[in-house]
Amino acid sequence: MKAPVEVGVGLLGYGTVGSAVNRLLVESADDIERATGHRLRVVRALVRDPGRERAFPPEPGVLTTDPAAILDDPSIGVVAEVMGGIEPARSYVLDLLARGKPVVTANKQLVAQRGAELFAAAAAAGVQLRFEASVCAAIPVIKVLRESLVVTNVHRVLGIVNGTTNFILTEMEGGATFEEALAEAQRRGFAEADPTDDVSGADAAAKMAILATVAFGSRVTLEDVEVRGLEGITDRHVAAARELDLVVRLVGSATLVDGKLDVRVRPALVDRHHPLAAVEGAFNAVMLQGDAIREITLEGPGAGGLETASAVVADMVSVIGTAQTGFLQNDACWRTLERLPPGELRSPYYVHLEVDDRPGVLAHVARRLAAHEVSVARLVQAPVAGGAALHVVLHEAPQRAVDAALAEIVQLPEVHAPPSVLPVISDRGVAELGWA
Amino acid sequence: MKAPVEVGVGLLGYGTVGSAVNRLLVESADDIERATGHRLRVVRALVRDPGRERAFPPEPGVLTTDPAAILDDPSIGVVAEVMGGIEPARSYVLDLLARGKPVVTANKQLVAQRGAELFAAAAAAGVQLRFEASVCAAIPVIKVLRESLVVTNVHRVLGIVNGTTNFILTEMEGGATFEEALAEAQRRGFAEADPTDDVSGADAAAKMAILATVAFGSRVTLEDVEVRGLEGITDRHVAAARELDLVVRLVGSATLVDGKLDVRVRPALVDRHHPLAAVEGAFNAVMLQGDAIREITLEGPGAGGLETASAVVADMVSVIGTAQTGFLQNDACWRTLERLPPGELRSPYYVHLEVDDRPGVLAHVARRLAAHEVSVARLVQAPVAGGAALHVVLHEAPQRAVDAALAEIVQLPEVHAPPSVLPVISDRGVAELGWA
Repeated sequence: MKAPVEVGVGLLGYGTVGSAVNRLLVESADDIERATGHRLRVVRALVRDPGRERAFPPEPGVLTTDPAAILDDPSIGVVAEVMGGIEPARSYVLDLLARGKPVVTANKQLVAQRGAELFAAAAAAGVQLRFEASVCAAIPVIKVLRESLVVTNVHRVLGIVNGTTNFILTEMEGGATFEEALAEAQRRGFAEADPTDDVSGADAAAKMAILATVAFGSRVTLEDVEVRGLEGITDRHVAAARELDLVVRLVGSATLVDGKLDVRVRPALVDRHHPLAAVEGAFNAVMLQGDAIREITLEGPGAGGLETASAVVADMVSVIGTAQTGFLQNDACWRTLERLPPGELRSPYYVHLEVDDRPGVLAHVARRLAAHEVSVARLVQAPVAGGAALHVVLHEAPQRAVDAALAEIVQLPEVHAPPSVLPVISDRGVAELGWA
Repeated sequence: MKAPVEVGVGLLGYGTVGSAVNRLLVESADDIERATGHRLRVVRALVRDPGRERAFPPEPGVLTTDPAAILDDPSIGVVAEVMGGIEPARSYVLDLLARGKPVVTANKQLVAQRGAELFAAAAAAGVQLRFEASVCAAIPVIKVLRESLVVTNVHRVLGIVNGTTNFILTEMEGGATFEEALAEAQRRGFAEADPTDDVSGADAAAKMAILATVAFGSRVTLEDVEVRGLEGITDRHVAAARELDLVVRLVGSATLVDGKLDVRVRPALVDRHHPLAAVEGAFNAVMLQGDAIREITLEGPGAGGLETASAVVADMVSVIGTAQTGFLQNDACWRTLERLPPGELRSPYYVHLEVDDRPGVLAHVARRLAAHEVSVARLVQAPVAGGAALHVVLHEAPQRAVDAALAEIVQLPEVHAPPSVLPVISDRGVAELGWA
């Protein structure tokens, strides 16, 4: 057996993920050699403060504050960008690619916002840029999409891609209020002190932009993603969902409809028999639906330093293993798809209305829905203080029809608060849902 | 851009899977070219009867009854074995590997029973032998294990790897008897007229042998797998499980304990909050637990002609894409692990006993359990005709301790029928299960 060739690794950043990458490379050197025939070793790591204490300290002399130390080191065969943020990460990565160094990145915002530029640079230089860790940490959804599902025509991606909001919703199912659940998420370190990025859906939107880009082969940017976050979701929604055998989840969807794409993030009611309903706590899951495979769902922890590092190292192993081949080293984008006008996307919906409890209200509501060709699958009326609550499940309809009907319904004098409207995700007909 | 190089494909077999492979290669030729730079085309397909009508007929002249037509054709760069059975598939594959032709196989029994010989032949010839489609069809568990989880030290694999039995158990949850559920599975084409292979656990055992081999890097043969099938599972088990917030599933497990391996297939009670409990109908799922990733679960259809063909083509794409590299082209087995004595595996258990309803019985049972250091997490006594039923949940204990205690308990004059014992799979403490 010939001696393994050593490959130098450069790290941009040596925080939680960077130190975990080094640790995995050291502890799993034999596994990597078996897979690739090479031994990978961190020779340079770019940091701001080399004096800081580190979780898994690198060998002496590895830490540097000079990006040129990585750029100019001919022994470095692959670089992992684990520093986060757009700049200077973007400039460093562009410089590295231009020098012919393959890069692996865990940086979701960088890929989502600057993907076009970065992949063009990689293609121009003929080097690989991999990004498994940028979406859902260790869940290998990018590799599965690009390599395992290469001939399946994936036409829909559904994902729970933000662990913080999923944790909050799972806690709310257990009886907590939104505020209590958020506080618990912060206490456990799942949520930042400022949870806006998670709660608003912005974090999920970046991940869905990347997933849609890879799944459909067409560049999807943040601006292409319609986003609604958890604002406005209360224990009332959770309770109403339970009645219908549904759970509330923040769901990202990317859908190909007649060659046009729709990408969105929003709270949805998910059928308890749907694989995404089983995703609890801070876990993530992505369901890939395609012609040849029906659907494949991948579930696991969508965050964590070691989990992210595991994906970074797996990408490095693939880079080293497929160097000198043409295998999947092109940009995933090979076409430009139009966006579906948002109102055109069809879905079943759940609508909650509060109304006066007097004769004729139901007929008024039903007439407005029918006028827009929206049909009711199930309806329950329950008394509430000062009137009645209507829980309505609508058969699949285009969003614009539902919106138009509701715009008229809120004008009715018998209708109180603005309605709440959530899409329903179910493999069964919605008429078969709960309310036994 | 340089012209794509055509790669000839040979097929051993042109039945449901073979014709679907050809269809996918034709319909997805552009996708494959984008991934690999090559166009794949079926040039030869070995069949017994070239005159038979085919679902997706190949080009004229492709069908042949002569294996040498594939073996000796220099234009053939990769061969898919989709004929099934051990012989002559084994001989053909060995001949092809010896000639330096990479092979992709969908043949579970061939890999499980003859893996050692086949991988040795592939290694000797320096060509690839891939087998994604041999386990759970389109669910890419082999690629994920070998490529994405290369540095995660997977120490446990839990799988629902037989769709027929999972369909039966899901139907039983819905109120059907075993016989009704089996008949329905046969009616829908999920179960053969002779369902022995599925119901006995033999099919699941072959898949678990392959998964354990890849996950742990040590050859696991059919003889190494302890198997118990669905025989003896009745609606009583399903009902008792429901009381405890559990579901009955046929679960394959492969576990590494202190460097020794345990592989088994058996009915188990799965916590409704565990990802495997959400697997319904004929779907499969595999959960991979490792140091760096906690756990990743892959779920999808575990059978089907097109689904299997999709995995075969993905393997071909990987073969073509990584040819000339050393990437993962070695045998997955790099060590020889001892087997854990079966009695040593620890698990929580559920035990059902029928006993005389008179004072002292409980104390007798509890004393026998305690004598073997088996402790009770929960116990419910319910009246039944002619006595009482004891439903007991035991804390985690080695199987031999539970077996020894039960061997004494069945000798007690107050105990009626032989007890039924099922392992419990839960991430929570078993004391937290149902019986609210």
